[in-house]
Amino acid sequence: MQDRSNSKSPLDNGLSRRQILVAAASTAAATATLGAAAQTSSPRSAVDESVLDVVVIGAGLAGLTAARDLQLAGCESFVVLEGNDRVGGRTLNHHLQNGHYSEAGGQWVGPGQTAVYDLCRELNIGMHPTYLKGKSVYAAQDGSLYEEDSGGGFSVSPNMQRVVDKLNELAADVPSGAAWTAPKAKELDALSLADFIEPYNLEAMDLLSFDVGFRLTDTIHYQEVSLLYALSRINYAGSYEQLEGFTGGAQEQRIENGSQYISEVMAQQVGDRLHLSSPVRKITDWDSDTVSVHSDSGVYRARRVILAISPALCNKVQFQPELPQARRELQQGWPGYSPGRKTCHVYERPFWRDMGYNGWFFTIGGEVMWAYDNSPEDESIGVINAFIYPSMPNDPDVLAPMLANMYARAFGDEALRYTEFHDQDWGQEPWCPACVSPLTPGFLTSGLMPALRDPIGGLVWSGTETAEIWHTYMDGAVRSGHRAALEALHGLSQSQRV
Amino acid sequence: MQDRSNSKSPLDNGLSRRQILVAAASTAAATATLGAAAQTSSPRSAVDESVLDVVVIGAGLAGLTAARDLQLAGCESFVVLEGNDRVGGRTLNHHLQNGHYSEAGGQWVGPGQTAVYDLCRELNIGMHPTYLKGKSVYAAQDGSLYEEDSGGGFSVSPNMQRVVDKLNELAADVPSGAAWTAPKAKELDALSLADFIEPYNLEAMDLLSFDVGFRLTDTIHYQEVSLLYALSRINYAGSYEQLEGFTGGAQEQRIENGSQYISEVMAQQVGDRLHLSSPVRKITDWDSDTVSVHSDSGVYRARRVILAISPALCNKVQFQPELPQARRELQQGWPGYSPGRKTCHVYERPFWRDMGYNGWFFTIGGEVMWAYDNSPEDESIGVINAFIYPSMPNDPDVLAPMLANMYARAFGDEALRYTEFHDQDWGQEPWCPACVSPLTPGFLTSGLMPALRDPIGGLVWSGTETAEIWHTYMDGAVRSGHRAALEALHGLSQSQRV
Repeated sequence: MQDRSNSKSPLDNGLSRRQILVAAASTAAATATLGAAAQTSSPRSAVDESVLDVVVIGAGLAGLTAARDLQLAGCESFVVLEGNDRVGGRTLNHHLQNGHYSEAGGQWVGPGQTAVYDLCRELNIGMHPTYLKGKSVYAAQDGSLYEEDSGGGFSVSPNMQRVVDKLNELAADVPSGAAWTAPKAKELDALSLADFIEPYNLEAMDLLSFDVGFRLTDTIHYQEVSLLYALSRINYAGSYEQLEGFTGGAQEQRIENGSQYISEVMAQQVGDRLHLSSPVRKITDWDSDTVSVHSDSGVYRARRVILAISPALCNKVQFQPELPQARRELQQGWPGYSPGRKTCHVYERPFWRDMGYNGWFFTIGGEVMWAYDNSPEDESIGVINAFIYPSMPNDPDVLAPMLANMYARAFGDEALRYTEFHDQDWGQEPWCPACVSPLTPGFLTSGLMPALRDPIGGLVWSGTETAEIWHTYMDGAVRSGHRAALEALHGLSQSQRV
Repeated sequence: MQDRSNSKSPLDNGLSRRQILVAAASTAAATATLGAAAQTSSPRSAVDESVLDVVVIGAGLAGLTAARDLQLAGCESFVVLEGNDRVGGRTLNHHLQNGHYSEAGGQWVGPGQTAVYDLCRELNIGMHPTYLKGKSVYAAQDGSLYEEDSGGGFSVSPNMQRVVDKLNELAADVPSGAAWTAPKAKELDALSLADFIEPYNLEAMDLLSFDVGFRLTDTIHYQEVSLLYALSRINYAGSYEQLEGFTGGAQEQRIENGSQYISEVMAQQVGDRLHLSSPVRKITDWDSDTVSVHSDSGVYRARRVILAISPALCNKVQFQPELPQARRELQQGWPGYSPGRKTCHVYERPFWRDMGYNGWFFTIGGEVMWAYDNSPEDESIGVINAFIYPSMPNDPDVLAPMLANMYARAFGDEALRYTEFHDQDWGQEPWCPACVSPLTPGFLTSGLMPALRDPIGGLVWSGTETAEIWHTYMDGAVRSGHRAALEALHGLSQSQRV
């Protein structure tokens, strides 16, 4: 037991409290003349200590939640292996000057995302509302600008409302964690979202709103997204409005210190059991009592392995023996590349707010999907983030002023005087092949999906894709981590039965 | 694996979804020609199947949450033993005519109680706001009435605000789960809340507000409550206002179908592994690999035992060998009797609302601590619940009209025409010795507290009292259940090491 009870770091607040407890308990137990037999139920001398209880692969929200749960359970025999030189997975902060931050990956939370709320509560991490007040600006392809105050959210015309109502109605019968068991699953999965929408003959602005909404959620055009898959997401959110909305919706709040901070706090608790820059290349003997995990920082042997990475990333790992066919096909068919790109312009203050703008900017048919105000709550600096198409220039010296010029047309020349610029292209991340992974028509009902979640041999599958609700969200990642810890501990208890 | 995938009951919605998954996975695995070795990691033929993995004692929120987690982990080798002929522990519904309900035990949830929110989300159980709108009525000892509209909450005078501010300030340094480690813990624990308040010379109405607030939270007079203990609660709530308040506070919302429903849904999932009317009398060999639990429905042997009951109730169990001294003393010193009593008058409609009343009624220095509107959200009937002193008459034919007469003076003669009356006296419950258990001065710093939580031998301690945040609340119970499942599973994995 590592004793950090003297640590004053606010980062390990949760654990140090527990460690104090454990330390205090040991003392109390000693004074209570409790026999050693009562402290540890069995002698451990015969155990091969070089065999760990668990190896966790991936130090994103899923893997670190699982690791934290193992620790809370009393399990100290584990490591966490992370391919990157940082934690957080698909959450990442642009670290700005003077300790400011702007999220470069997943960033919002909203009602119903109770797992991530609970985790933040336990870690003593706060939240604040997304800034929404004011008018949005739309740039048409002919260069003309259009302003609208939609009251903090995407506007929905009566015609579009019919589409939304129908989606909500259909989604009610789709269990989000097992969409393939829904009535008419095959029919719904044969269609793309675009197929479904087409007969409604929506106006251009409705289509834009719809396209932007789903593109922000899924990164790809809704022509490529299975209707059944879209319904599974609407199901867990409660409604289309709650999935795509801000107030009362999945984009209602931001995490204090940025979403990556959640993982950073958990990483502090895991301590030196976390190994960064340790991509896993090969897993052998996963069907035996002791699995070997071959990483760039060495070979680790363990009785259970939690793979807290996306199914697509599992393809980068060589398995010996081969995985069962269904699992292999699941991984191979899983979307492995859905690029997302997020930029960040920093200003001395959020000047657009004074002019009644919310910082939202769209180019209709252009390359800025959505720019938005991502300033800190205290307005000490101004930040405009943007989701842009991967086709935009990579050179920041070209891209930064190009975007700033667009913002200047919308919000005035002050937009040209940015103090910092950052760009995050998720398509370039070696250990995050896709920021989200919307499923294409036919995949959910291919018969492969049951291989997504159920443990096989010494392997436990985690990662947001495996969550029953809020899959592909931070919340789903946390849920999948909790489940994985339980499954791994249960597996350990079984593996000793000889 | 019990297959309930064909069940249409809304009660097992969460699990049936998972069970569908599991069933589907088995099919897929079979078609994928996956070897049997990959399905179960070790042969189990040599295992003594009469020894369970886990016995859970107590079918309240803590025990059932733990049992549900065991199931989610894949563990099916457990039973839940409950002394009562019902589940829910300190949550209980008065079951009214026509399917209506009114909570007779713990009933409210509020911001920060993320564990119970998350559980309800997973179980598909909704919530609705507590009814607050209108004036409250106070009855003085001379019979005079006084009305006040405090906007849905207890009013706080400027003088009282000084007390509250000081409490909040002190609470910030008290870690709720380990209050004894706070700076000046001994000093703060030497005082009662009354000692702390006295120097402020509060007015009678302030004292009433304070007394009612803490009495509703703790059931006893604040003269008996340790200041340090009170601070530990304010700490987890965030502030005194959040602990005692309604909107934005711990009494903000009610559970749909009543709080007992949460346990009823989980009990459905546990199925026939739950044994009601099975009080546990004795636990033997808790320091060995196989613990024996002697209950009225038989002796169960298990490798781990989760005691999801209050420390006071543990005194009713005989342990062989004796528990360590610190644990014994902890249990013996734990408050075992803090009576709470809750009545319920049912009316055709919440008529008081029409007259601008919120249904709140207090007798200053009298026996009605607090009566309040507990009607269903749709106003289909009217319900007035009341916290009353145990000294009130037990005979419902005497008590019901006595209370109705008081309500009639406050809200008009319609209050006399109630259609049902119910009374729940927690002091009479055989397996709930105390609805809450506020700690008296000196207990938290007695050195016994570390024995509250840490597993010993095959025993894992659960129950809301063991939670690090929101102890004595439903939320704490759920948290303690999650932790207990993790600890039990970890213990199982260790107990096999020979």
